[in-house]
Amino acid sequence: MKLHILGCYAATPRTLTNPTSQVLEIENHLFLIDCGEGTQVQLRKNKIKFSRIERIFISHLHGDHFFGLPGLISTFRLLGREKDLHIYGPKGIQEAITLLLKLGNSWTNYKLIFHELSSSKSEVIFEDTKVKVKTIPMDHRIYTNGFLFSELPGERKLNVLATSKHKIDKAYFRSIKQGKDIKLDDGSVIANSQLSLDPPPPKHYAYCSDTGFNRDVIPLIKEVDLLYHESTFLESEAHLAKKTKHSTATDAATIAKEAKVFRLILGHFSTRYKSIQPFKEEAIKVFNNVDLADDGKIFEI
Amino acid sequence: MKLHILGCYAATPRTLTNPTSQVLEIENHLFLIDCGEGTQVQLRKNKIKFSRIERIFISHLHGDHFFGLPGLISTFRLLGREKDLHIYGPKGIQEAITLLLKLGNSWTNYKLIFHELSSSKSEVIFEDTKVKVKTIPMDHRIYTNGFLFSELPGERKLNVLATSKHKIDKAYFRSIKQGKDIKLDDGSVIANSQLSLDPPPPKHYAYCSDTGFNRDVIPLIKEVDLLYHESTFLESEAHLAKKTKHSTATDAATIAKEAKVFRLILGHFSTRYKSIQPFKEEAIKVFNNVDLADDGKIFEI
Repeated sequence: MKLHILGCYAATPRTLTNPTSQVLEIENHLFLIDCGEGTQVQLRKNKIKFSRIERIFISHLHGDHFFGLPGLISTFRLLGREKDLHIYGPKGIQEAITLLLKLGNSWTNYKLIFHELSSSKSEVIFEDTKVKVKTIPMDHRIYTNGFLFSELPGERKLNVLATSKHKIDKAYFRSIKQGKDIKLDDGSVIANSQLSLDPPPPKHYAYCSDTGFNRDVIPLIKEVDLLYHESTFLESEAHLAKKTKHSTATDAATIAKEAKVFRLILGHFSTRYKSIQPFKEEAIKVFNNVDLADDGKIFEI
Repeated sequence: MKLHILGCYAATPRTLTNPTSQVLEIENHLFLIDCGEGTQVQLRKNKIKFSRIERIFISHLHGDHFFGLPGLISTFRLLGREKDLHIYGPKGIQEAITLLLKLGNSWTNYKLIFHELSSSKSEVIFEDTKVKVKTIPMDHRIYTNGFLFSELPGERKLNVLATSKHKIDKAYFRSIKQGKDIKLDDGSVIANSQLSLDPPPPKHYAYCSDTGFNRDVIPLIKEVDLLYHESTFLESEAHLAKKTKHSTATDAATIAKEAKVFRLILGHFSTRYKSIQPFKEEAIKVFNNVDLADDGKIFEI
């Protein structure tokens, strides 16, 4: 898994910083997470192939997470896209996009499939054989979801030493990887555990933005490998965080610590701060493994 | 008058080029003309004060002229704007902006005043004591207007030599500038033409984008000081220009020549071309005083 930060600043696009947008490489997917104004330029700068994006996840309908989407949809058409595009986002997103396309008399050549969300409970919104995506309900001023991206457990690994010791024919390898015991020609049975090894543990990435401090997310993001949690403010502006339903760096670190995640990335920084370094300094007092997002940064998971 | 080109490329924002947006300084106004995605970043880069923009003119509702507007409106709010904002654009623009604001539960603190256009004839859409703005109906795939920005004739200039020769009291200067004859204390009358000089001729800027080749605009833009005319394509792609209702550099130059404008600026270049220089080379064969727009360029009128 690889996470590309395209933009991680709050509120407005500026000369050198971009509103929220990320690309998650997971198995054979490129998922776009949020789409602030300027996302398509950031995709180009970060050399991400537009055609590989098939699913877009929008957390909520504030402009800094959403106003790049109409333009991206139009650009897909201009680039000759034919593949379906799936858009997951709050109820209302279909009406907005459809109206903008209609006003421009600009229908898409490809199929635009909306998955509108309105549940206040976590739900599975995408699943294939390798990946599962669940919503993480956030506590923001408008209906907002974070997203949990999970690899599904892979096949077991062949224990090559064991299979050659037992002279197991290749024809059985598929079954062994699927966890089955093997019955030999002489009738004896070898337990799968003797022939295979556990696969690497599946990885999990949790995206939590925008949200006030909210312990309800903890069971949903328990022990994830990577948590991106918004920290719009520092504790010195905790009153603003509370008022606008955002988090401080301390809030984010507290959630990370209590959810026992492996690593925390802070983002969605208010543009009022001249430097983002103090966010790390504040969070690290609560949770040790913390890093700062920044536009153009890539995190390996 | 001063024209700032913020973006002058067609279709999609790219790493180094921007879709259409311009700022016209005219008298005490800063008019924003079209607002493609990325306009607010271009305003910052070009050091244009957001608060001075009070009127925005949108030619049509294709994304490359319009998708930067919702974000700009939101940013105005975040910057604490209180002054009214007037938006002139095709019918439907109010519904689109209102829906986006409603979905984000993001009402503005300032008054948003829409002037929706639907006439197929040229009409005056703004006028004060110094400036007049008229629509120029374009021939595009959807309802589109260009705009003619005109200074109104200024006050006459005092002929200082004449007023001192006639020993005219200062108290009359205001009347002289307003074109009135002066009756002296001895009952004699001096004609205004003896006491004043013609003011500098008012200047006119015509913005024509997007449009196919259309001679109907010629009487509306006759002898303007500056014409910005779209030239999405070169003549080698005339078939595409015809199909998509855009113009070639030759088309634009032909309009400039027949309308006897003083100077032509070409813009709205298709991103298919590696260099825009050939646009000038093509147009100059038809019309001599031609220049190329480019993002960040400023033209004095």
